[in-house]
Amino acid sequence: MKRPEQPIGIFDSGVGGLTVAQAIAEALPNERLVYFGDTVHMPYGEKSPEHIRAYCEQIVEFLLSKHVKLIVIACNTASAIAASYLRSKYWQLVEIIGVIRPVIQQIIQDQISSVGILGTHATIGSGIYPQLIQEYGSTLDAFQLATPLLAPMIEEGLMDTEVSKAVLHQYLSHPGFTECEALLLACTHYPLLRQEISDFFSGTKRIYDNAAPLANTVKKYLSENNLLAESRQGGNTFFVSEQTAHFEKTARLFYGTQITIQKIDLPS
Amino acid sequence: MKRPEQPIGIFDSGVGGLTVAQAIAEALPNERLVYFGDTVHMPYGEKSPEHIRAYCEQIVEFLLSKHVKLIVIACNTASAIAASYLRSKYWQLVEIIGVIRPVIQQIIQDQISSVGILGTHATIGSGIYPQLIQEYGSTLDAFQLATPLLAPMIEEGLMDTEVSKAVLHQYLSHPGFTECEALLLACTHYPLLRQEISDFFSGTKRIYDNAAPLANTVKKYLSENNLLAESRQGGNTFFVSEQTAHFEKTARLFYGTQITIQKIDLPS
Repeated sequence: MKRPEQPIGIFDSGVGGLTVAQAIAEALPNERLVYFGDTVHMPYGEKSPEHIRAYCEQIVEFLLSKHVKLIVIACNTASAIAASYLRSKYWQLVEIIGVIRPVIQQIIQDQISSVGILGTHATIGSGIYPQLIQEYGSTLDAFQLATPLLAPMIEEGLMDTEVSKAVLHQYLSHPGFTECEALLLACTHYPLLRQEISDFFSGTKRIYDNAAPLANTVKKYLSENNLLAESRQGGNTFFVSEQTAHFEKTARLFYGTQITIQKIDLPS
Repeated sequence: MKRPEQPIGIFDSGVGGLTVAQAIAEALPNERLVYFGDTVHMPYGEKSPEHIRAYCEQIVEFLLSKHVKLIVIACNTASAIAASYLRSKYWQLVEIIGVIRPVIQQIIQDQISSVGILGTHATIGSGIYPQLIQEYGSTLDAFQLATPLLAPMIEEGLMDTEVSKAVLHQYLSHPGFTECEALLLACTHYPLLRQEISDFFSGTKRIYDNAAPLANTVKKYLSENNLLAESRQGGNTFFVSEQTAHFEKTARLFYGTQITIQKIDLPS
């Protein structure tokens, strides 16, 4: 039996999922968060499904040992590859919410006619977005393109530069995007380019990311199950499986404020 | 006792080291190569020294099981972090050559006065190049800058585009580079940008990469130890620890021709 005072577990293959953690922290300021970034195994996009599922299982076990009341997968690749598997394995122990379904539901609910999806090779290659749109029986038209330079560019802090201008021009000039009503930024890093992407289309496109719809879904789930924390019971904790100076720098970029990250080895 | 007909072992954290394998194959067409790309653990640049050394040890054991007469580390990060360690552990069993010393020796021998070094965060952050230059007692002046967008850009095949123009302008406009006599492309991917980088400076800079000096060092070592293969004894073999479509595509890009890659699990 879960209790409101328990924390929410969030995990990602790296520190990009901190944009999702930040959105949840903003929407639900009373909630304690336990974040795990599997930095020793990143990028998940270059790993086989069997490896990804095994990594995610270890993380879910770790988060359960931290007595979480809910687990959020803040990673497109892990959501695409492992969410169903984890749900069928752990459904009696904990609810698991991925980043993909909430934003698709939001876009369908907003009656968008066509959406252009940007993501990593792994996310786009998985075909999970078009597949779920079909599964929901929606007539939403989806165009998707892998945009693998965006994440490293963001990690370098090269937003609003000649580099981001050229890279965005390279990707966004594709007719598949120009013809769409809305865009979906299907990678945890991309919200940091939201304004620049919007400006590229002179503000004519509605822009979605994973974080906000996910935060709403989390709020709704907790509320419906009487699990919303009523008051703040301590600080958030952040774990990674591999620690480098680079992660500390990008963590600040993604979470917005300085945070303390602890390294922890999970059994493999 | 090693014999000329044994193959040369080459390893990298991924498939980028195939540019080095190609240079060795070109310089020494009679030699058989056994290549191992540790794609399940890439990028090494985001791993701790202890992890990198442990990964490299497993790879050396694997290559020894393939009866190699010499091991080449075709990876800047692994050379920086693990070469000395591996040499002191395996010196009785096999000679191990890294990618870093040969090019430094070449630059010093060519009496270059100042060199601008481009590499990943890990390579530049390790400080290995300035450290070795000092160790050799050279007066060579070195400026270095991490250029982390180049490798993913090359993997996307975005050479000679507006993107590469903007990205190279971002990095190469640094006065540290414009004032140098020569440039050193200290990442296995970068030879694919050699012409464009040369053109940026209107051909006024001498440009070095790791591959050619390394191939010369390998040739010299084999020759001095009577280990040069006299005739071709079979094909090259290529192994990776994780296989995705992306690696197959980039492997072709880096090696120049289509190759067959086998996946193999090393004990961890």
